[in-house]
Amino acid sequence: MGGGLKQALKGALRPLVRHLAPPRQDLPLSWWRLERDAAGALRLDGVALEGLLARWGSPVHVVDSVRLHDNAARFLVRPGVAGPPLEVYASYKTNPVPGVLARLHRAGFGAEVVSPYELWLALHLGVAPERIVYNGPAKSEASLELALSRGVGLVNVNTRSELAPLAAVARRLGVRPRVGVRVTVPGTWGGQFGERVDTGAALAAFREAAGLPELRLVALHAHLGGELADAAGLEAFLSGVLGMADQVRERLGVELEILDLGGNLACPTTRKLAPRDHRLAVTFGAEPAPRPPGSVLSIEAYLAAVAGRVGGHYARLGRPAPRVFLEPGRSVTANAQLLLTRVAQVRDEEAGLTWAVLDAGINVAESVRAEWHQLLPLLDPPGAARRRYRLTGPSCMQGDLLYPSWSLPPLSPGDGLAIMDAGAYFVPFSTDFSFPRPPIVVVGEGPERLLRRGESFEDLVALDAAEPPAAAGRVDAGLNGA
Amino acid sequence: MGGGLKQALKGALRPLVRHLAPPRQDLPLSWWRLERDAAGALRLDGVALEGLLARWGSPVHVVDSVRLHDNAARFLVRPGVAGPPLEVYASYKTNPVPGVLARLHRAGFGAEVVSPYELWLALHLGVAPERIVYNGPAKSEASLELALSRGVGLVNVNTRSELAPLAAVARRLGVRPRVGVRVTVPGTWGGQFGERVDTGAALAAFREAAGLPELRLVALHAHLGGELADAAGLEAFLSGVLGMADQVRERLGVELEILDLGGNLACPTTRKLAPRDHRLAVTFGAEPAPRPPGSVLSIEAYLAAVAGRVGGHYARLGRPAPRVFLEPGRSVTANAQLLLTRVAQVRDEEAGLTWAVLDAGINVAESVRAEWHQLLPLLDPPGAARRRYRLTGPSCMQGDLLYPSWSLPPLSPGDGLAIMDAGAYFVPFSTDFSFPRPPIVVVGEGPERLLRRGESFEDLVALDAAEPPAAAGRVDAGLNGA
Repeated sequence: MGGGLKQALKGALRPLVRHLAPPRQDLPLSWWRLERDAAGALRLDGVALEGLLARWGSPVHVVDSVRLHDNAARFLVRPGVAGPPLEVYASYKTNPVPGVLARLHRAGFGAEVVSPYELWLALHLGVAPERIVYNGPAKSEASLELALSRGVGLVNVNTRSELAPLAAVARRLGVRPRVGVRVTVPGTWGGQFGERVDTGAALAAFREAAGLPELRLVALHAHLGGELADAAGLEAFLSGVLGMADQVRERLGVELEILDLGGNLACPTTRKLAPRDHRLAVTFGAEPAPRPPGSVLSIEAYLAAVAGRVGGHYARLGRPAPRVFLEPGRSVTANAQLLLTRVAQVRDEEAGLTWAVLDAGINVAESVRAEWHQLLPLLDPPGAARRRYRLTGPSCMQGDLLYPSWSLPPLSPGDGLAIMDAGAYFVPFSTDFSFPRPPIVVVGEGPERLLRRGESFEDLVALDAAEPPAAAGRVDAGLNGA
Repeated sequence: MGGGLKQALKGALRPLVRHLAPPRQDLPLSWWRLERDAAGALRLDGVALEGLLARWGSPVHVVDSVRLHDNAARFLVRPGVAGPPLEVYASYKTNPVPGVLARLHRAGFGAEVVSPYELWLALHLGVAPERIVYNGPAKSEASLELALSRGVGLVNVNTRSELAPLAAVARRLGVRPRVGVRVTVPGTWGGQFGERVDTGAALAAFREAAGLPELRLVALHAHLGGELADAAGLEAFLSGVLGMADQVRERLGVELEILDLGGNLACPTTRKLAPRDHRLAVTFGAEPAPRPPGSVLSIEAYLAAVAGRVGGHYARLGRPAPRVFLEPGRSVTANAQLLLTRVAQVRDEEAGLTWAVLDAGINVAESVRAEWHQLLPLLDPPGAARRRYRLTGPSCMQGDLLYPSWSLPPLSPGDGLAIMDAGAYFVPFSTDFSFPRPPIVVVGEGPERLLRRGESFEDLVALDAAEPPAAAGRVDAGLNGA
């Protein structure tokens, strides 16, 4: 009865709240090098996105090469402050598409890999072994043998328990690998990652590493975890890291050559959605707002803060600063890729909300369930009306809900939409759930080109053993009744 | 400060609660045809699971052919009550592995498909077109052309808006397809699926369908949504469906030939985890309990209830009962498959909880985050101690947490574990996130055989365009500092 009353109350309030909810404030199109022509058609660097969909089919990923190179170049500009060299490694897991990674490598990025496959991929792409950092909590013995025999630049152990097996591989191969220890400074992720600074576990791991003659202990590795969006969070993290490096020098007499500061820098045009955002959108149709992109630490501010803080710390100590490794992912690739999709079905439902089914759902855009991503209609004629939509993916699963509430011009089946900032975690989290995975094209280098073709139906069963034909041809088969 | 106090309190309570928490009550191994030998090694139908891991590598999916056939056979036994024929269609999306589907088809199941790919797959596997039901909210025009030209047995429109485009395809091809309308009865999922009974939208859709000369309106289609676990839920659902069928006959004069009752029957040895289960496990190490499998509607009870309720309804009306279609997924395949994995890393952390990293995580077992799945050590020597573990997957992502708290014998790297009931939604939700997807073998038909080989590293870049070698070979590249 209480539940029924609550439902009735929500039902009565819903149209009112939906009516009163302020319109969503969209970010300027220039954040993505987009513009609309006089008819309202969306263009990226002069290319009509509707044309891309027509030529490559729907859905399709579009990599903006100009933005990707621009982001990479910004990471490789020397910050205008005194400080140590900053060396940049591409986080493979964030966007493992060879066409994306190869462009970052050609720009000057090394490779940060976290699995045997990613290690193989970096070598396959021609990255010089000394420009590879091998991280991760599940390095196989075979992959360690590959890494050490090829002379990978740095192997960071995730926990102390990796040290002895790593030393055993080194002894067997007769090499002395360059090794770092991942630590967890207070206020950052712990869990399965790193040895804790506050309990003394990190120092114990460094002590053990320093005592193993098979290993060359050169690095301290740390990740903020989560998302790095402001200067205060960065300062706390850097303080923790520098304090730990001081401990290693003072307590163990080890002068570290490298501080590997991991990744986590935010994308300015996305944000994590709180459970409350989702609830309000589902129940009352409230449209979540973006965060002000200007409030997010920029690449330049990040580099300047790192160089300044690390440089200042060692200048005060009167010691040479270590090299600094950075492992950016999201901040390099997220806003350099977008996902184009078409409306598959539209229908009315409930007061003030219209349901639309897209041909892209959680199978290719899982991140949209947890993060704010701008959604743009490919055609938005001047003066077009607005209607509030609930947008789902194409699969037969109630949870395939991408946008619980989003105002758009009136939609019809076939209309195109762009999901922005699709360059981080969209492709690696993609599944074959009922639909094959889409192609990836690159624009901004002359005529668009295919980086990865879409999966064919045949591709999805290419690894399967042949089966005798089904016997379900008999119409009476499967009848269990009279 | 409040947060700090809360943390401190939790920290103080944790060891106490962990100590007091009752041991987890495991389900008997016989639920999965498992047993342990005298040394404590886990065997499936006489085959040592550790041997399977050793022969096929880790992780590996294992399909139990005997259980799969047994489940299928149970669905095809005529229930011991008077009633209409029940015809059974395999839900492709639940487990789209050709080796699994072909076995169900050979047993007598038809195919229930929800996407152009699944339609293609059913035809590819040799299913007779008249034994295919085509559902889903995103049927492409090309797939409708294929379905109609091949003479698919039933096309269920998800919403009224599909009717006109379907009729247009039928007109063009000069065929008259057999069509159903998906409805949403009160108390079940609505959202993007079906036309609502309570608003009159469903009747309006039937009226439109009945008026289209290009279509043969033969079916009413409905899903309970969520999970069907008890007789009361089934009765409410069936009442709604039968009431709607009566409306269609009384108001429109249309005698439906088919009631398609969808799927949703639960797996007895899993359950949905509540957010509370997760919180208690994360914060206090409380181990979530299974539900009593005997409390879940069995296949036999389900069939008897459906046949009895539908048969009784039409007997009272003095009319012949329609054919009944069932589309089971989870209840057929879930407990006929398990996922074997090995421990990659173990380390101590926090009072009373030990962290272990598995080589299978959310990349291949996403469902474990939301559902209770029995986890069994492959070796559990008699009298072995118990230790409480927090088990994560291998990826570099904090959310890759499979079991926040689970008691096991002491683990070492390399030890094997079995995640049970991996036959529903594990494979279709798998990703290539940092790791290739594992092989699938079948046991119970003589020596085990490969159904699907594991992905190679090369497979993961087989669709990618060749890239010029990376220029990151220069050690000075990527230096942006002094």
